[in-house]
Amino acid sequence: MQNSHDSDDGALVVLSGGQDSTTCLYWAFEKFGAERVAAVSFDYAQRHKVELQSAAQICALSGTPHHILPINTFSALGGNALTADIPVDQYSGEESTRLPNTFVPGRNVIFLSYAAALAFQLNYHHLVTGVAQTDYSGYPDCRENTLKSLQQTLSLGMDYALTIHTPLMHLSKKQTVQLAQQLNALPALGLSHTCYNGIRPGCGECPACVLRAKGFAEAGIADPLFSQNSG
Amino acid sequence: MQNSHDSDDGALVVLSGGQDSTTCLYWAFEKFGAERVAAVSFDYAQRHKVELQSAAQICALSGTPHHILPINTFSALGGNALTADIPVDQYSGEESTRLPNTFVPGRNVIFLSYAAALAFQLNYHHLVTGVAQTDYSGYPDCRENTLKSLQQTLSLGMDYALTIHTPLMHLSKKQTVQLAQQLNALPALGLSHTCYNGIRPGCGECPACVLRAKGFAEAGIADPLFSQNSG
Repeated sequence: MQNSHDSDDGALVVLSGGQDSTTCLYWAFEKFGAERVAAVSFDYAQRHKVELQSAAQICALSGTPHHILPINTFSALGGNALTADIPVDQYSGEESTRLPNTFVPGRNVIFLSYAAALAFQLNYHHLVTGVAQTDYSGYPDCRENTLKSLQQTLSLGMDYALTIHTPLMHLSKKQTVQLAQQLNALPALGLSHTCYNGIRPGCGECPACVLRAKGFAEAGIADPLFSQNSG
Repeated sequence: MQNSHDSDDGALVVLSGGQDSTTCLYWAFEKFGAERVAAVSFDYAQRHKVELQSAAQICALSGTPHHILPINTFSALGGNALTADIPVDQYSGEESTRLPNTFVPGRNVIFLSYAAALAFQLNYHHLVTGVAQTDYSGYPDCRENTLKSLQQTLSLGMDYALTIHTPLMHLSKKQTVQLAQQLNALPALGLSHTCYNGIRPGCGECPACVLRAKGFAEAGIADPLFSQNSG
């Protein structure tokens, strides 16, 4: 059977509903064939649950099977929570070492571990994530060396060959926008969510909105988030 | 300040409430000093929730701070669940690739990743887990090579030096029982839970009960689970 794609295998895309993961979804369509791509999103009490709606709309637009997994552990970790119904000793350490609620170090490691478990079920051997070292160098679990190590850990831990693809790892936002155009992902980007303030199409002032606008401006492309939603 | 222990640092023990993790808790007391040890258990809709009660009792007996983290993702993964309130396309893959409910490949990777996030909060640089290659060779995420790789992944992903200790990795059940005696862990083992059928002190017939009994018999030590609970 003829196959014009790079692989007969399938890929699961970690889809937050934002600009980068949406671009990755379309990258996966090209690499694996749209019929061999599924998406997974996580419902973890994130501040901007509106992005889950974006993810669902993007999957509906593109006909992509969409899995949404709940994660209640992050908020428990954030609050250092103990269950109420079992008597336990409370840890009385320094409050200053506490992390903000719902932030968990290595969170991306956990996202990808769950995605790997789902890929195993789907019999897919590829994960795709939109992390970019360029923009998010502050998050060590988005760096290339972490993801290479995680790929090995998950392959060993599930005894299952798994490749983690990071097509945006070394791209600037301008280059990501250009890639999205090449991949015909702009209509889907019109459904994506970026704004930290949860405003659609965007507040235009928060760091995320500013970064997105800069990328589109530098690429010389109109952001469909505004052109599609202004009519 | 004088310190008779191997390290000034602290350790977080992954405590299921079973025989092996309980032995590891006492191993950590000796290595790090009891005042620098905490335990974490996971409430993930396991069939034998009674083990969480065992874990809590063992922590109460030993004065160990006990953290219990909820995990609702495994059962969602097991059932390949999709949320009901967001319209999504259902994956229509083969049913035969489905895993049994609450079993997740690489589950131990996820347990240890959450434990790592909690250790980060506690400012502890050591994790201790009771996995043993000898008895559980069927689980690839309990093998030494997986755990070495995971240690690197988590250290990179959190930008935080972390060591994963597996004191039982190459011990037989007999040797584990002998170690427990040396560490004065037998009274705590009287509170631990092993039976697959959820019977306390044990049904005596399931594979877990049989394996435990064999270990105590070979070590020539009476299992405190029965001697403590027979009066």
